[in-house]
Amino acid sequence: MQMPAPDQGIIARRTQISARLSAAVPGAVIDDPTETRAYECDALSAYRCPPLAVVLPRTTQEVAAVLRICHDERVPVVPRGAGTSLAGGSMPTADAVVVGLSRMNAVLETDFDDRFIRVQAGRTNLSVSGAVDAAGFFYAPDPSSQLACAIGGNIGMNSGGAHCLKYGVTTNNLLGVTMVMMDGSVVELGGPMGEAAGLDLLGVVCGSEGQLGIVTEATLRILPKPVGARPVLVGFDASETAGACVAAIIRAGVLPVAIEFMDRPCIRATEAFAGAGYPDCEALLIIEVEGSPPEIDEQLALIRGIADGFAPVEFRESRSEDESRRIWLGRKSAFGAMGQINDYMCLDGTIPVSTLPEVLAGIARLSQEFGLDVANVFHAGDGNMHPLILYNANTPGDLERCEALGAEILKLCVQVGGCLTGEHGVGVEKRELMTAQFTADDLEAQMQVKDVFDPFWLLNAAKVFPLAVSAPRREGLRNAA
Amino acid sequence: MQMPAPDQGIIARRTQISARLSAAVPGAVIDDPTETRAYECDALSAYRCPPLAVVLPRTTQEVAAVLRICHDERVPVVPRGAGTSLAGGSMPTADAVVVGLSRMNAVLETDFDDRFIRVQAGRTNLSVSGAVDAAGFFYAPDPSSQLACAIGGNIGMNSGGAHCLKYGVTTNNLLGVTMVMMDGSVVELGGPMGEAAGLDLLGVVCGSEGQLGIVTEATLRILPKPVGARPVLVGFDASETAGACVAAIIRAGVLPVAIEFMDRPCIRATEAFAGAGYPDCEALLIIEVEGSPPEIDEQLALIRGIADGFAPVEFRESRSEDESRRIWLGRKSAFGAMGQINDYMCLDGTIPVSTLPEVLAGIARLSQEFGLDVANVFHAGDGNMHPLILYNANTPGDLERCEALGAEILKLCVQVGGCLTGEHGVGVEKRELMTAQFTADDLEAQMQVKDVFDPFWLLNAAKVFPLAVSAPRREGLRNAA
Repeated sequence: MQMPAPDQGIIARRTQISARLSAAVPGAVIDDPTETRAYECDALSAYRCPPLAVVLPRTTQEVAAVLRICHDERVPVVPRGAGTSLAGGSMPTADAVVVGLSRMNAVLETDFDDRFIRVQAGRTNLSVSGAVDAAGFFYAPDPSSQLACAIGGNIGMNSGGAHCLKYGVTTNNLLGVTMVMMDGSVVELGGPMGEAAGLDLLGVVCGSEGQLGIVTEATLRILPKPVGARPVLVGFDASETAGACVAAIIRAGVLPVAIEFMDRPCIRATEAFAGAGYPDCEALLIIEVEGSPPEIDEQLALIRGIADGFAPVEFRESRSEDESRRIWLGRKSAFGAMGQINDYMCLDGTIPVSTLPEVLAGIARLSQEFGLDVANVFHAGDGNMHPLILYNANTPGDLERCEALGAEILKLCVQVGGCLTGEHGVGVEKRELMTAQFTADDLEAQMQVKDVFDPFWLLNAAKVFPLAVSAPRREGLRNAA
Repeated sequence: MQMPAPDQGIIARRTQISARLSAAVPGAVIDDPTETRAYECDALSAYRCPPLAVVLPRTTQEVAAVLRICHDERVPVVPRGAGTSLAGGSMPTADAVVVGLSRMNAVLETDFDDRFIRVQAGRTNLSVSGAVDAAGFFYAPDPSSQLACAIGGNIGMNSGGAHCLKYGVTTNNLLGVTMVMMDGSVVELGGPMGEAAGLDLLGVVCGSEGQLGIVTEATLRILPKPVGARPVLVGFDASETAGACVAAIIRAGVLPVAIEFMDRPCIRATEAFAGAGYPDCEALLIIEVEGSPPEIDEQLALIRGIADGFAPVEFRESRSEDESRRIWLGRKSAFGAMGQINDYMCLDGTIPVSTLPEVLAGIARLSQEFGLDVANVFHAGDGNMHPLILYNANTPGDLERCEALGAEILKLCVQVGGCLTGEHGVGVEKRELMTAQFTADDLEAQMQVKDVFDPFWLLNAAKVFPLAVSAPRREGLRNAA
């Protein structure tokens, strides 16, 4: 949805704000509308809006200077990591200054004795592991976008990844942050020791989608790399059977490092694209275990014993580095492969693992009802689903139908005891669905906590909460000031 | 410190409040001062104060009815689990109603497929594991007081335990709560899927020391019991060497389920008390690993390799159930043993593991300076220290000296990058020390979040924050209403 072109009032406002920002952080302000276009959307590219201006600061102090001016001028601010949000978390509004962290990618400290790394928040996820790899360590959360996505965004969305079944999501691996408050003050939350005395404000910040402050530096737990890892590929003749097998593995208490699920539409598209040699079956699981060779053998024997109870059509255990690479190749190519053949919308919801068969059946039913195909490829072990709804962006009405189907699927997740989001956040995409998960009182409590951190609702304020409740609150607070 | 006897005003107030409470929750109110004496302190027994009254509700609805009345009457409320707090977290004030959860100990639901249990918050920690033991599961956090302490208190203090090195503390194992707000409304936070959309209010509630609401029901992660476990006992000729060995094990990335530390004063007292057959050395570690027999063998070989680099005077690997029991016997008797020979104050602070040798040397120096012995017995693997300061309660001035020494030791923990509390909470004991860890702005932000949940500061309000800042705020908010 293209927003209307900026009016004269916005142009005058831009000139005034840009002048103040440029004086405070020289060489860091982008205000030419042709250049700010690069920032008008994130990975939810169906939604676009050019911002008032963009600032790319280099230090915490520069971020503080920018926010002080914006606070003073009551200009809304949209924080941006790498802009990979699939939920519109870093989409601008026309009256907002985007604060992008792409220049803030330094490693500030590594400590292998206490096992942490401190980085600027614009550093990409994969390059955090890269900075400690030679010493034998890694940073566990690994979103699919890990090559591009920034740690600041990971913290905002509480991102997960394939390996989070074993190691937890961002909140379980985040020890502390330096955060700039909207008034420009700088606070430290947590630290290398993690849980501090007093209220867990680090916990409430992680996953707050840039609405409480701008995280500029992060202290992250690093872990020693495992001795070895080995994947197996297990094929099934029905999606529900694969789902039931996942539930059985989790129930038995085996804790693989990853359990990934793909159904037939996804397997076919992937094979055509990457030729990984996957079997042509209804659904497959990629299960990876870690440890020393005897530990790996033992865990895989247990998994085989459980899988055998579900009559798999294939059980392929990797016997070499090359086989392992090929087992993962299809999974890692899945999103690219789907994008080749269709437009798609990637959903993100979580469910109790035991309800996987029921939810897969429900998605199939809804898919028929709405007349749009849904491909499933997701982190099955922790119940984090990513159904891909396939549609044609050039067919009028298809996007709207796709969004309506997406909403129904996410409501199904909530109905079975799950949640609207696993790792992508609520952003713009799901703000109106929040009422499916939370009562008006729940939302009021969450908004009151935002009031404490950001009394004028300037920070990423058009996200997360339904506009019908957040917009009047925002206007009321700003006008009352 | 005995508080002064209640005056006539308090007696009249008690009569009035009791009458309303008794009408709402018949048979649940204790207001006879001889009977409320049992509730005048918790395990920080040097501090005592008889409450206005005590209520022992049976259901969430009864708790809501009690809080509605107290809110209406502006009567402060002190939540109480089992009263095992070592920091005065459930100590009453003279104007407060104690809401005790001891009757709320039911198991509400178990789900072995999605691996959770839902219990009333008064249920004891150990009996949660007891309820799922036969099915092969357990609940991981295991405070030393696990036979007596309640889940509600564990949530309030974010409790840990010996096994938390591997499994995390309460916040890592808590999936959801039912909580009664001070105005009597009932909210659900989180659920079996853990992290929900929106702000992580479950995270901010865990560890909030009963200041945000009364948790009445909790959904807890349960884990399959490990195949087997085996402890080793390693003796050293210096505490600092034992500390350095712990840091080396953690650095190497071995993750035992527990690393417990005891120094000579503790070993001697324990041997005299329990006769576990410990070596007479300066310090010892008990390290336990879990898994299948080959996994256990492999991990212990790694640990032996690391320990050998620190010239241990003893490395005793358990070869039988009976040997394992005896290795743990001394550790589990340590607090009882120390209590036989001295009065003691048990501290609770956390430090980066790499600073263990430095902090142990610092404690020894402070111990000399203050002229009071300090025995150390604690969870070394995660840097959670429990120095025991030995003193004589009958020697005038000894308790005050002991408290001054305790404050210095905790400040040392903060100086090296650690924290004032690991699992006991701040309570009454450490409220004045919060300024050693937090700036005035930090505390203000925490208090503003409390304002959101409890606008009149009625819930456990004399705890956690320094009285100089919390008392005027409390009075101001109550009088403004």
